[in-house]
Parts: sequence; structure tokens; C-alpha cells
Amino acid sequence: MQVDPFSPDYFMGEALKLARQAAGAGEVPVGAVVVCRNRIIARAWNQTEQLNDVTAHAEMLAITAAANHLGGKYLSQCELYVTLEPCVMCAGALAWAQLGKLYYAAADEKRGFSRLASAKGTLLHPKTQIMSGLRAEEARQLLQEFFGRLRNPPSGGTYV
Amino acid sequence: MQVDPFSPDYFMGEALKLARQAAGAGEVPVGAVVVCRNRIIARAWNQTEQLNDVTAHAEMLAITAAANHLGGKYLSQCELYVTLEPCVMCAGALAWAQLGKLYYAAADEKRGFSRLASAKGTLLHPKTQIMSGLRAEEARQLLQEFFGRLRNPPSGGTYV
Repeated sequence: MQVDPFSPDYFMGEALKLARQAAGAGEVPVGAVVVCRNRIIARAWNQTEQLNDVTAHAEMLAITAAANHLGGKYLSQCELYVTLEPCVMCAGALAWAQLGKLYYAAADEKRGFSRLASAKGTLLHPKTQIMSGLRAEEARQLLQEFFGRLRNPPSGGTYV
Repeated sequence: MQVDPFSPDYFMGEALKLARQAAGAGEVPVGAVVVCRNRIIARAWNQTEQLNDVTAHAEMLAITAAANHLGGKYLSQCELYVTLEPCVMCAGALAWAQLGKLYYAAADEKRGFSRLASAKGTLLHPKTQIMSGLRAEEARQLLQEFFGRLRNPPSGGTYV
């Protein structure tokens, strides 16, 4: 079956590819793409280890890259696809960016922004639409495999 | 009266200098320094306009710079001094960084992280100590002057 290259399914697939790239580099596997008028204008994956920087989540890097591409700070005409529910930091950044629509795959019950939703709404900008669960199983599996390997490294060695 | 160069008052004064630098560059005047064992290891000011990036708050840039200096991601042995109460994004980043102690000057009733405190605690790391109000009047005045000028530019022109 061919995947429509302009479908949410396709774009989340691109984010999943980036998450796999993160895993290959020893990073918690999370990938993100920013789409504007059916075009991917930014791609990023979690680089907190490589950049030695807690702020280097996939979403943060994608926001910065997308703004560079657009020459403007606001992403109200854009969608962000990310393989894991954004944390509080990333949700705060997406709020400042006035993101048009957020698609996330796997939920993050411990660190996800949506546990902080209140009667006043979520941490996101009030105009941001939210769609969750798209290709969630693949994203979750990637994360589980990654953390499984950390606990039981195939070489029999240990990680510090 | 001489200011003790190892006092919170002194370090907040340094953050205020950076906030003035931001104002001079047309940025919302917020400055931040990271202190580790009585030494300033990172200085930053808000650069969202210059960098065209909503993530370029003073605190975010200071966290990244401090981690670069230390060669490690965590700031549990550090203090961050910032002239305005951190927003949700910055609080989320400070939580990931496991900041030791946060000093902020002026409160931000609209965007500040503390309005989202719950029975479970604030958005910060549970071990982060918080001290607010230090030199708050100076920080607030800087912000008021900045926004006052935006509304009533001295040239009589208008800002878009």
C-alpha cells in the first residue's frame, strides 16, 4: 500500500525515521518534523547527549530550525509532528511559537505536558489544535527497545 | 556602600546589567547569570528578536552556556539569577537541568511558572530551591520603561 506523501501518516513516518536516527546515536529516540503547506521545513531529533544540553529536545531544535527557514518566529501556519508527547519545556516553547497544529504519537504519562491541563486549557497556545495517538505503537516500541537495551546491554557490559 | 561580590545582591546586579543590554538591543529586558561556587560561569540576555527564535530566552541561553562550561548537563550545584520570573518553557528546562537554586527578581503574573504550582509542587525539579523578589523593583522598572517606549516611541513613529 502506498502512503500518501501529504498525509499525517507520512509526516509522522518521517518523524519516526528521525527517532530511529536518535536511537542509533545513543539518544532517547524522539524525532520531530515541522510541516508548512505540505512541505517539511525542519527535521530534528533529540540530541541532549551529543550536544550535552538538556534543552536540545527534538521539538526545540525543530522550532529553531523552522523559524530560521521561515525568517519569522511564529509557526501558526505550521504543524509539528513529534513521536513522543512534548514535555513542559517543549509545550512552553510551542506556545510561544503559536503552533498551528500538534501531532504527537506516543503519550508520556510522566513528563508529558497534557497532565498539566486545567480548566483554562493546556500549556499550549489556545489556538493550537492537538492530535495524539498517530502511529503511537511504533513510537512506543522504539522507546521501549531503547530503554530495554540500556538496562540489558547485548554485550553484557554495563552503562554508567 | 560596597557590594559584596559574592552576594546574591551582586549576582542579581550582574543579571540586571545584562537585562539593560537586552533593552539597548530592542529586546524585552531580561538577563540571567549562572553561578557555580561563587563564580559566574554563564551570562545571557533575552535574544528572541535578534536570533528570531522564541526559544532564545535568557535562561535557555544561560543553561546551554553553563552546560558547555561545565562539560555536563546538570546544574544541581549551581544557582541561576534571572531578572524576571521564568516562563513555563524555561521552568521546564530548569527542571531537566536539576538546578540547585533559582533567584528571580520581578514576578510575572501572566506568564510566570509559579501560577502553575500544584499540590505536587512547582514545575521545577523538586530539589530546586526558589528565592524571589531580590531587586525586583529595578527589574520591574526596566520592563515598564521598555514597554512604555514601545507604546510611546520618542520619535513619534509607530512600531508594527
